[in-house]
Amino acid sequence: MAVKHLIDLDEFSHEELFKILNMANLIMKNPGYYTDSCHGKVMATLFYEHSTRTQMSFQTAMLRLGGTVIGFDNPLNSSVSKGESLKDTVRVISNYADLITMRHVDEGAAKAAALYSRSPIINAGDGGHLHPTQTLTDIVTLLETKGTLENLTIGLCGDLKNGRTVHSLIKAMSKFNNNKFVLISTKELTVPDYIKAILKKNNCPFSESTSLADAIGELDVLYMTRIQKERFLSEIDYINQKGVFVLDMEKLNKAKSDLKILHPLPRVDEIDIAVDDDPRAVYFDQTEYGMYARMALILHILDSDHKLINDTGDVNPAFTCENEKCITNKEIYLPKLTKAEENKQVCAYCEH
Amino acid sequence: MAVKHLIDLDEFSHEELFKILNMANLIMKNPGYYTDSCHGKVMATLFYEHSTRTQMSFQTAMLRLGGTVIGFDNPLNSSVSKGESLKDTVRVISNYADLITMRHVDEGAAKAAALYSRSPIINAGDGGHLHPTQTLTDIVTLLETKGTLENLTIGLCGDLKNGRTVHSLIKAMSKFNNNKFVLISTKELTVPDYIKAILKKNNCPFSESTSLADAIGELDVLYMTRIQKERFLSEIDYINQKGVFVLDMEKLNKAKSDLKILHPLPRVDEIDIAVDDDPRAVYFDQTEYGMYARMALILHILDSDHKLINDTGDVNPAFTCENEKCITNKEIYLPKLTKAEENKQVCAYCEH
Amino acid sequence: MAVKHLIDLDEFSHEELFKILNMANLIMKNPGYYTDSCHGKVMATLFYEHSTRTQMSFQTAMLRLGGTVIGFDNPLNSSVSKGESLKDTVRVISNYADLITMRHVDEGAAKAAALYSRSPIINAGDGGHLHPTQTLTDIVTLLETKGTLENLTIGLCGDLKNGRTVHSLIKAMSKFNNNKFVLISTKELTVPDYIKAILKKNNCPFSESTSLADAIGELDVLYMTRIQKERFLSEIDYINQKGVFVLDMEKLNKAKSDLKILHPLPRVDEIDIAVDDDPRAVYFDQTEYGMYARMALILHILDSDHKLINDTGDVNPAFTCENEKCITNKEIYLPKLTKAEENKQVCAYCEH
Repeated sequence: MAVKHLIDLDEFSHEELFKILNMANLIMKNPGYYTDSCHGKVMATLFYEHSTRTQMSFQTAMLRLGGTVIGFDNPLNSSVSKGESLKDTVRVISNYADLITMRHVDEGAAKAAALYSRSPIINAGDGGHLHPTQTLTDIVTLLETKGTLENLTIGLCGDLKNGRTVHSLIKAMSKFNNNKFVLISTKELTVPDYIKAILKKNNCPFSESTSLADAIGELDVLYMTRIQKERFLSEIDYINQKGVFVLDMEKLNKAKSDLKILHPLPRVDEIDIAVDDDPRAVYFDQTEYGMYARMALILHILDSDHKLINDTGDVNPAFTCENEKCITNKEIYLPKLTKAEENKQVCAYCEH
Repeated sequence: MAVKHLIDLDEFSHEELFKILNMANLIMKNPGYYTDSCHGKVMATLFYEHSTRTQMSFQTAMLRLGGTVIGFDNPLNSSVSKGESLKDTVRVISNYADLITMRHVDEGAAKAAALYSRSPIINAGDGGHLHPTQTLTDIVTLLETKGTLENLTIGLCGDLKNGRTVHSLIKAMSKFNNNKFVLISTKELTVPDYIKAILKKNNCPFSESTSLADAIGELDVLYMTRIQKERFLSEIDYINQKGVFVLDMEKLNKAKSDLKILHPLPRVDEIDIAVDDDPRAVYFDQTEYGMYARMALILHILDSDHKLINDTGDVNPAFTCENEKCITNKEIYLPKLTKAEENKQVCAYCEH
Repeated sequence: MAVKHLIDLDEFSHEELFKILNMANLIMKNPGYYTDSCHGKVMATLFYEHSTRTQMSFQTAMLRLGGTVIGFDNPLNSSVSKGESLKDTVRVISNYADLITMRHVDEGAAKAAALYSRSPIINAGDGGHLHPTQTLTDIVTLLETKGTLENLTIGLCGDLKNGRTVHSLIKAMSKFNNNKFVLISTKELTVPDYIKAILKKNNCPFSESTSLADAIGELDVLYMTRIQKERFLSEIDYINQKGVFVLDMEKLNKAKSDLKILHPLPRVDEIDIAVDDDPRAVYFDQTEYGMYARMALILHILDSDHKLINDTGDVNPAFTCENEKCITNKEIYLPKLTKAEENKQVCAYCEH
């Protein structure tokens, strides 16, 4: 059975992505029209790690389309705890459900699941690897609040080294015309080199800054994330620098009047709550856009015209993935798949 | 956005309360008529502490109206455990759901949530403070089984000092004409003075008794609750007195033939199971009335004509609530709201 | 109120069983026709022990019929943890739900629940006692993949002593014409004597084998189960024998081309994953047949013509069940019910 999955947002063509963005916009304008679009369809949410927020967003999306939801949010409650393989779980659940959204601790897990599922898989986060529906949420939010995905100066602030959502957003936005990036972080927590390589390859200007206050004035978009205390080099560094990356009204007063502030949430203290009431703060609305984005995605995936299976990569029996967080090191029956990236073969599951 | 919440049953006018009671009766008579009344609507049940019974009652109520349900029953699974504030959680979930029912360990939590929610909040219990839908359940049960809410001699038995549901029921029933109250408990566990003050203010006759057997003969209604072992003054007191507050067939034989026995459940051993088969026992039916009461409440709250926001009280920056269980001592960003009660200003969240 | 439960598959007449098998087949052929068959109905899944797979199968079955689902999957979250009796829980939940599926750790629990429920109870597993919907699943799978329930040589392999599903399947299939059984296990783990007595009583030929490889050639059906390591007599026995009861391609190559391999799942390592791709492997399809079987069962149970209450057995105050896992030893208020079996009175709950 050939089905269409969403493992990585990169798999969508530009045209396909805009089809989803347009659909999200249509749903927003007339949600009642879609109340029964998925009548009779069942979605499973297999959450091998807790992410109540993401799970509820998917559940609401399916319910607002008239579909229904089964699932679990704790592997300890599931057959997993009886030693069942991911393959078997997915084979069985895909007999029950028309669509599976899966969250997993291991990198490449969604890709692995897609090899065995009879129903489409939507990756709802596989470890530190990918979280494509968060990026889709971010893009819908930008399009709806800025009116365009081009000609934007996009600031990203916080832990840019480890932030999965930051990397995905940069990759996605670097494909649209004439976007500039301002990378705001400590020197130790700037984006990885492969992200800079993508920016250069796509001819995107970018600059780096260690001060949100200095950078904020030129931004059209500010994507805030948290720097965890343990990411600073030392306690002294933490005390000296933490305020530099906190958005408060004082810094916001230096910003453009049409700035839009995004945040993947949950927020801890990197945005002062006084900012919440400023019209430039769209991070709460962002969660609503995320729901519409997921509704559009579900409709797109369940569209009966999709019969294309994802490219699974090349079987390469001699390959062993060295990423210890890769699903292939947990589920040892998985075929050793690689794919070409730049000049080398990388693991087709976790891209390591 | 202005919406109507249910934080405290007191907020409903007499007219509004009877509108809900009538609606509950209509639904009971013809449940099939309401099967699709909430088609397309999503309710979130945010249960920060376990209360499976209450949560299932709300879920069933929404499902029987054709709506759908998302939610959690364990804060450890939620974004809460990542340090998110109640404000942020409520702002986000109210983007997903048309209605939120919330159970919380802290007093005043529902009131706090209502300040930030874009959707109506129904208080499903905030610590030891309020549990308005239990009281609504009790009132519907009385009206349906006694045929009136007036001219009743109402006995309340058990731990009347700490029983949240007891206090609320007395407050509610003292507003109807010509009800008498018989308060049956140990001397140490009688109702607080403020409840007696309410009874006096509303000109309700009441008496106190330390013997269920002595008091039962005059009652039209008996509201049973449990006395927890640790509430007795000593082990000896417990052994001597516990039987006095247990309802068994021997005591029931002294009661009127049209007595109705209520209990908020779960029951442990304060009602002998032999009583279950007596037609005067309505405590199991009470849970069904509770489901209809919640259906009526949901319909009332979702009625599109409600645009009135609750009175939030007065901002009083100098005020600090001394109740350590109050939500304001956990969520420190909350505005310091007070309201006038008798001659003094009390906390608008927990009424301490 | 008189309702029809499913506690033990034996309670269904041959005619009634075939009615359900036919219904499952009709649903399979035209699932869309049944999308709204249970519109407005609520099913509760009361899972006092985790069984995510079974619970999801029931949930999906009800959702695919247009009904809705409430429930819990952890007694610690429920009123049970407040000391409530099974009787009270069931009385209350049956006021909410039109149908209850119940999984419990204690033997006879479903029977006990049926005494107090206002809605039909479906036994979803009561300890090591019964699991009738697994057996119904197995029968539907056999009928759909073999085309008949007669004239089959049925091998059962693994731990035949402790396997609840094995015993039920043998009992069920021994009632159809001309089936032969091959019991494949270590000598210590063969079926209990009472199962052999049933086979003899029903004139079913059977043989015993200690080698899957030797036995597989003559089989039309192979029902695989796992032997847990701790069931072997010694570590040496385990190492020597474990491979004997593992199905791999080498053994499968000796089998008939129309063999069908079933397994109740989850599988650990008793079937090599290379077997999964063989068309004779139907154990994943079996889970889908299970969903259709449960859909048919739910329709059958909710059919409004059912007004027959189950026979509850004889009240026998002097009887005490000696099975320490029996529900009567936990819930002491239960009436002491017995029933005649062969020449003696056995417990009507756990049949001990």
